[in-house]
Amino acid sequence: MTSAALREQFPILERVAYLNAGTDGPVPRAAQEAAARELASEVAEGRGRAHFERRFELQDELRAGYAELLGATVDDIALTTSTSEGLGKVLAGMDIGPGDEIVTSDEEHPGLIGPLIAARERGAEIRAVPFAQLAEAVRPRTTVVACSHVNWRTGQIAPAALAEVGVPVILDGAQGAGAVPVDVVKLGCAAYAAAGQKWLCGADGTGLLYLASAFRDRVRAIAPSYLSFEDASLGFESSLKPDARRHDTPSLARASLAFSAASLAVLREADLAAVLARGPALAATFAERLAAHGRTLAPRDHTTLVAFEDDDPEATRDRLSDAGVLVRNLPGTPLVRASVGAWSSEDDLERLLAVL
Amino acid sequence: MTSAALREQFPILERVAYLNAGTDGPVPRAAQEAAARELASEVAEGRGRAHFERRFELQDELRAGYAELLGATVDDIALTTSTSEGLGKVLAGMDIGPGDEIVTSDEEHPGLIGPLIAARERGAEIRAVPFAQLAEAVRPRTTVVACSHVNWRTGQIAPAALAEVGVPVILDGAQGAGAVPVDVVKLGCAAYAAAGQKWLCGADGTGLLYLASAFRDRVRAIAPSYLSFEDASLGFESSLKPDARRHDTPSLARASLAFSAASLAVLREADLAAVLARGPALAATFAERLAAHGRTLAPRDHTTLVAFEDDDPEATRDRLSDAGVLVRNLPGTPLVRASVGAWSSEDDLERLLAVL
Repeated sequence: MTSAALREQFPILERVAYLNAGTDGPVPRAAQEAAARELASEVAEGRGRAHFERRFELQDELRAGYAELLGATVDDIALTTSTSEGLGKVLAGMDIGPGDEIVTSDEEHPGLIGPLIAARERGAEIRAVPFAQLAEAVRPRTTVVACSHVNWRTGQIAPAALAEVGVPVILDGAQGAGAVPVDVVKLGCAAYAAAGQKWLCGADGTGLLYLASAFRDRVRAIAPSYLSFEDASLGFESSLKPDARRHDTPSLARASLAFSAASLAVLREADLAAVLARGPALAATFAERLAAHGRTLAPRDHTTLVAFEDDDPEATRDRLSDAGVLVRNLPGTPLVRASVGAWSSEDDLERLLAVL
Repeated sequence: MTSAALREQFPILERVAYLNAGTDGPVPRAAQEAAARELASEVAEGRGRAHFERRFELQDELRAGYAELLGATVDDIALTTSTSEGLGKVLAGMDIGPGDEIVTSDEEHPGLIGPLIAARERGAEIRAVPFAQLAEAVRPRTTVVACSHVNWRTGQIAPAALAEVGVPVILDGAQGAGAVPVDVVKLGCAAYAAAGQKWLCGADGTGLLYLASAFRDRVRAIAPSYLSFEDASLGFESSLKPDARRHDTPSLARASLAFSAASLAVLREADLAAVLARGPALAATFAERLAAHGRTLAPRDHTTLVAFEDDDPEATRDRLSDAGVLVRNLPGTPLVRASVGAWSSEDDLERLLAVL
């Protein structure tokens, strides 16, 4: 599939310079159709056994897609509603309390900050250091590192040296999965949580959690549900599924599952490797042109985020929006952030520059 | 709206004797249409600020509907994905460990058993007693009671004396909300968790958690996310929303929210009080006729569940299904369970009896 053919899958791109996948990706027509089909079937056929079998089938499909995307096996992937749910499940499930130190950065997203605040309430010490110094910050008393894989503000990549720090590393992959190539084995991470609705263009309320098998025993299922058990009919003697599926979120709608699976299929048809190469390459072009245009950029790496300083980020965001250019500002910072995907184009860049 | 007019809202009822709302309710045409509209808008308009505003608007609408249904204020209602998520959040968020005793029944659903097993792992003692003896089982060392409001197997209602036991009572309302009148103040419960997709005919992956304001401080937000904070831009100094919204699930799809809100609107248009009266009344008729037909019924109260013994529940379920009568069996028991809602009819009963 050419990049023009990929663009044609997304109706919004006919009209809008859609640079917002870091929040919610554009939606392909195929996802809408897939979701609509499932909804129609629920109404016409009811929600009996076939309904549940279809849900499980879609779950399997989505899990397999997520696993391939991350270089993991399906047994290491739990289905979640969000990056936040995944990060929350891992940190709340760990035996963390007084005497434990969690190293993180001072630029994390609220979806990670929330679970860290909860860990602090349980007695752990949270040490927030500059993003680039995460690896050196690890010391003998450090229990775990929790940080973003790709910094949500700037587009910087977490230090590669984190693979060698000798403590479990929990990665917030919200700006990683579907944006840049991710190989959880090479990253050496214990957990990797990501979103279905951002760079994978899926439904809100879908996401994934990778848990390394060697790390699995350190994460308790804090609120297992029906799907967490091998045989839920055994009551208090029920045992949990042996793999990451024990952390599956209790209930995902068929329409949402089909939506996210169809979006992933569109990206796969366009060749995932090409998608993951094209987004960062195009973002690099955006960054160069913005710099040449006199904009000060936040420090970044070869990712899909381009953040630039602005005197009035909110007003600029609104001005861009009025001109059909969708970006976001980052509250509490002087930054406007453009999210550049494989579906973006040079024309989007021209439109952005024209307004600026 | 007459009961015939209510039935007409659900296409599946033209064909199937749909007695499965205790698992997943029938879906009204209006819910499909509402979900499809939101999906179309996501595709055509993208998912920028207006998208989020629409999500928040739908969340407000659904929260208000759930609050009214339970006799609660909106500040006491969190939106969840499921009954299980709500129960899990409450039990995992409580300061429970060695020395604590949780009283429950020996007939609970895996959605409650899961969080209780997790509490047991933290050192609490779980004491499972017969459902009818829940109130008397409370003793000085009991920390909390956690049980179903309406027993998912039998349709019995938890003892009214639970309102007076002097310890917090956490109710699994999966077979309560939308099935029978629920007044959380009168029940005197600390928490009430329920599902959107069962008796409220909403989307899978929607649900509600009521938290009594007096109990709120005893339940920690174990994994707060973006939406849990008053102002998420304050990083580690962010404070949580003062009310139950801090427990909102991180992400709900617009289509799912609109689906559940539209289903609730259909029930409201049919007059909620009438719906909540008609279901149990019709179920009582089912129960009488099944008994007259020689069936042994599980002990039940004035609810919407009718469970009867069968020599081969799985085979009978399948035989009924082949004849267009949708019920479920209850694994590990000799029971087949019929779920009778306000949308059910005497004709459904005749079809059920004809096959039996």
